[in-house]
Amino acid sequence: MNASVAIGIDLGGTTLSVALVERDGRMLASRSTPTDAARGPQPVIDKMVRMADELLTSASLDRSAVVGVGVGSPGPLDLDAGRIVRAANLPGWIDVPLRSLLFDKLEIDVVLDNDGNTAAFGEHWAGAGRGYRDMVMLTLGTGVGAGVVLGGQLVHGHFHNAAELGHTIVAIDGLRCACGQRGCLEQYASAGGVARRAIDAIEHGQSSVLTDNDTEPITAERVADGARAGDDVCLHIWDEACRALAIACINIQHSYNPECVVFGGGMSDAGDFLLDGVNHHLAAQRWSLCDDVPSLRLAELGREAGVIGAGGLAWRQSLDC
Amino acid sequence: MNASVAIGIDLGGTTLSVALVERDGRMLASRSTPTDAARGPQPVIDKMVRMADELLTSASLDRSAVVGVGVGSPGPLDLDAGRIVRAANLPGWIDVPLRSLLFDKLEIDVVLDNDGNTAAFGEHWAGAGRGYRDMVMLTLGTGVGAGVVLGGQLVHGHFHNAAELGHTIVAIDGLRCACGQRGCLEQYASAGGVARRAIDAIEHGQSSVLTDNDTEPITAERVADGARAGDDVCLHIWDEACRALAIACINIQHSYNPECVVFGGGMSDAGDFLLDGVNHHLAAQRWSLCDDVPSLRLAELGREAGVIGAGGLAWRQSLDC
Repeated sequence: MNASVAIGIDLGGTTLSVALVERDGRMLASRSTPTDAARGPQPVIDKMVRMADELLTSASLDRSAVVGVGVGSPGPLDLDAGRIVRAANLPGWIDVPLRSLLFDKLEIDVVLDNDGNTAAFGEHWAGAGRGYRDMVMLTLGTGVGAGVVLGGQLVHGHFHNAAELGHTIVAIDGLRCACGQRGCLEQYASAGGVARRAIDAIEHGQSSVLTDNDTEPITAERVADGARAGDDVCLHIWDEACRALAIACINIQHSYNPECVVFGGGMSDAGDFLLDGVNHHLAAQRWSLCDDVPSLRLAELGREAGVIGAGGLAWRQSLDC
Repeated sequence: MNASVAIGIDLGGTTLSVALVERDGRMLASRSTPTDAARGPQPVIDKMVRMADELLTSASLDRSAVVGVGVGSPGPLDLDAGRIVRAANLPGWIDVPLRSLLFDKLEIDVVLDNDGNTAAFGEHWAGAGRGYRDMVMLTLGTGVGAGVVLGGQLVHGHFHNAAELGHTIVAIDGLRCACGQRGCLEQYASAGGVARRAIDAIEHGQSSVLTDNDTEPITAERVADGARAGDDVCLHIWDEACRALAIACINIQHSYNPECVVFGGGMSDAGDFLLDGVNHHLAAQRWSLCDDVPSLRLAELGREAGVIGAGGLAWRQSLDC
């Protein structure tokens, strides 16, 4: 039997996904389930193992076919120790030696990385960043996850928290962020931030098409729809999101000088409406010293970027050895 | 004869410096002279060669003792081709194949890099960044030069213009920069920008100790002195410089996650007054997610960081081969 796969795991605050990932980046099979993070690490790890075994069985494989396991987790992480230091989206998960806990159950090599990094590596390996040596991905979801690939390698930095671009500052004295800072990109350009700003505007009595429908929750998608329809509140919030992303892209350009920036997460569902908005603000800045503006692209792997990228990291580790 | 040296060259808009650099980062000998860039590349290259030969003679060495030549130049550069694309500080130097022009005269391998990068590499190799694998240097001079060392290697990016951190944006809709953008770090935190802002304030009729002395030009050094003495105009401009640097350091922290950020150039002559000002604004941001704030340090090599770093790049290239 020649078939080999990596196991990719995406440990999210709400959803746990596991996939069998082939060497070319395709998924052979995948499953998702609620994480139930509040029950603590051990039941979640047991669930990862069970889901992986079930996927292998369904593909008529066993553990001997697995080249490695990759896990994307919320951070901050200690990558050397394979440990979750403290994850904002996994309450109570303090100092969890995830790599060794998982290895003890599976007896397969485990590589752990930040979920922003695994998503970026997935898009780089098998999605919108394929063929680029240098790319940056912003996952515009509940918060802003990010990952940076330079020369084909993820950038980690000394403290392993490089590419926390959601907490780069785009507005001096701007909106307060849960991280303690003011003016973080995440407050303006995440799907969560955009929805929060719209709710806030309505609570302050601004009139908007968003109030026409009281039964549906206010989401970034509805703000995008409202902006497309010309609603002032939605237009303003959407435009500020695009402007914040343009500032972030300029700072990415001058920091890493990548070929492209890939947008993923809920905000990227707006497609060209998002790209056009950001490009509009980029053009207004008129950078003239040289021709090095990165192209903007939409992610291609959707919610599966994370599991695919986690599998990709496991493949890379197994091939390096 | 066992002595070997690298030749380091720092091609500045006003000053040309050449040094013999030993393998441990010490300078055996060095010379500086006005660049006279307006006369075009060839006379400047002839001067580089003459200065290098004179330094070798004075050290009782000849060209056979030279392991390589490193040149730091204003950019943007095409590093693959060893070419100056167009240098803002070298008027008329368009598309200059500096590496091959210099090799033709010296017949020694030449490595070319951005002057912000050579200065950063110098401090990393033999100055304030010694012993750190991941560091960022900001040279706060006429403009803001920068260089980023990750895992001991300079970061260049796809277009070779990574670490142009002077043109990262720290203020939305801020001061117009010559590059076309608004709100670039360079406008607030370079020695040139600080002096320009002070001149502008005085021209707008603000009263300041800076007008007590009409004979001396207004410099960042005088603004720092005025701020120390409690002058309102100087205090405001100095504080905004420190705040802009704090924003830049936060964005550096979340982009590269280095162990330290080194400040060089004219602004760093203010020493602890600069560090304390930046640290004050960093503390106000209250980053709380993890313990990864880089330490701030003052450069140690002064104006010689560039030639030493250029020599260091030549050494590294020769040892890699």
